[in-house]
Amino acid sequence: MFQKVAIVGPGLIGGSLGMALRQRGRAETVVGVGRRESSLREALEVGAIDQSTLDVREGAEGADLLVLATPPGAFGQIVEEALPALAPETIVTDVASTKVQVIEVVSAALRERPDVSYIPTHPMAGSEKRGALAARADLFEGSVCIITPLTNTFPQTKTTIRRMWESVGARTTSMTPQTHDRVVARISHVPHLAAAALIGLIDHEEGQLAGGGLRDTTRIASADPDLWVEICKSNRRQVRDALADYIRILQQVAGRLEAGDFGGLRAMLSEAKQKRDSIIAQSTGSED
Amino acid sequence: MFQKVAIVGPGLIGGSLGMALRQRGRAETVVGVGRRESSLREALEVGAIDQSTLDVREGAEGADLLVLATPPGAFGQIVEEALPALAPETIVTDVASTKVQVIEVVSAALRERPDVSYIPTHPMAGSEKRGALAARADLFEGSVCIITPLTNTFPQTKTTIRRMWESVGARTTSMTPQTHDRVVARISHVPHLAAAALIGLIDHEEGQLAGGGLRDTTRIASADPDLWVEICKSNRRQVRDALADYIRILQQVAGRLEAGDFGGLRAMLSEAKQKRDSIIAQSTGSED
Repeated sequence: MFQKVAIVGPGLIGGSLGMALRQRGRAETVVGVGRRESSLREALEVGAIDQSTLDVREGAEGADLLVLATPPGAFGQIVEEALPALAPETIVTDVASTKVQVIEVVSAALRERPDVSYIPTHPMAGSEKRGALAARADLFEGSVCIITPLTNTFPQTKTTIRRMWESVGARTTSMTPQTHDRVVARISHVPHLAAAALIGLIDHEEGQLAGGGLRDTTRIASADPDLWVEICKSNRRQVRDALADYIRILQQVAGRLEAGDFGGLRAMLSEAKQKRDSIIAQSTGSED
Repeated sequence: MFQKVAIVGPGLIGGSLGMALRQRGRAETVVGVGRRESSLREALEVGAIDQSTLDVREGAEGADLLVLATPPGAFGQIVEEALPALAPETIVTDVASTKVQVIEVVSAALRERPDVSYIPTHPMAGSEKRGALAARADLFEGSVCIITPLTNTFPQTKTTIRRMWESVGARTTSMTPQTHDRVVARISHVPHLAAAALIGLIDHEEGQLAGGGLRDTTRIASADPDLWVEICKSNRRQVRDALADYIRILQQVAGRLEAGDFGGLRAMLSEAKQKRDSIIAQSTGSED
């Protein structure tokens, strides 16, 4: 159990983590740190945090866990502000959607404090909504949290963070930051761009006619554009490569349509169905 | 109210229509026509039909409405078998996902029977499931049914069919078969291929890590491959053109990533979000 958890940016992800830790009795106190009074008030109202402050240093003071849950562009400055207040053996973690570039920034900000342990994580949960009002204590139930330990992360820190995510319902898995960024480009970032591009294909009146298929397929296109631009920026190379692969697959499909190769098209659709069905069947969350 | 509705292929769509017409008292008798005893038994058990037969002619005998709800490849033969049994002023309709090619086939089969009125429709509802066991009386609630009247369709027939779809909860809209095929390539067929291609981008283990975003985005990739190959075949030219447009949009995105044009990327994502949000807000069905 943590004595004091400081969550900088208690929005959808940070707020859900705070709420889950509080409801499960895994933290004595959860302090929300933010830039706007109004957001912090929402986080307090929904029960995501016990206390709030606008002052990073005050929030970090005496925390045994500092969670970076703002957009990653702010991480460097937050860590620098928190630095003097961090106790030895404080664990710093983040929940950003990309890892390699984020780790460079946070590690650089922490370079004078080898006594502070930094361990990056990426909970693969969320929705197209944002903010503390969308937070849910069960957001992580049945989801996967990817942990990308650094070469100098203490084994005890890994265990602590793994247990924390498991205590809020997530399965955890470890991989290198590089592998993480490659994988999420394929399972998350390109699907997002693909959904947005599908909307680009239709006009408003055509969209009105669509069934549930299009609504589901494009749901993530309703997410926050700023957040996604930042993700694409910080994982630019991997997103670019995965998008090139995606375009190649679509060009194969187009080639089959052009050539009238419906056997080939059928094989591709069958393989996709089988793979998806088996992925869904083995995921914890049920489809319905 | 119809005296006798014959539904050839009482699966997900045909069975849901039968169930809805029965529950709302819009048909005295609904007869299911199929090729397999087991499927017809399921349709009877779930209440999609009152009676069943394996004989198209028997099913069509005395029907005032004949609904073609099998895969469209069978339409020509079904209409030819039904022809001698069709009464004058019988309305023939179909629920196929593409229209131009289907209309050619059905109209050719009906050419000797100008007394029979044919009116093609496309209910924009469904799911990745199939068969009568997936049928639901409320499947069409809040959905759109596109009607593509022919130049020789009687006004009275249009009214009858429009009222039928409205009685089961659908909004109706009319357009030419050509416009229909162009629009559905964009709002339905290409999104399907895009979802299947996203699955092609990942392996099974990567899929296990994904959150709800990927699951929703690729849901339609779990649909029946045979059905979708048939759709792509019968709407080949429009799907090809729409897919080419989709690839072009993705190449623009790739170009922006390559050039580091994140302002352009942001504009594209913002426009997609705004368009999707306004489409969802104005659709009858709620998002959640």
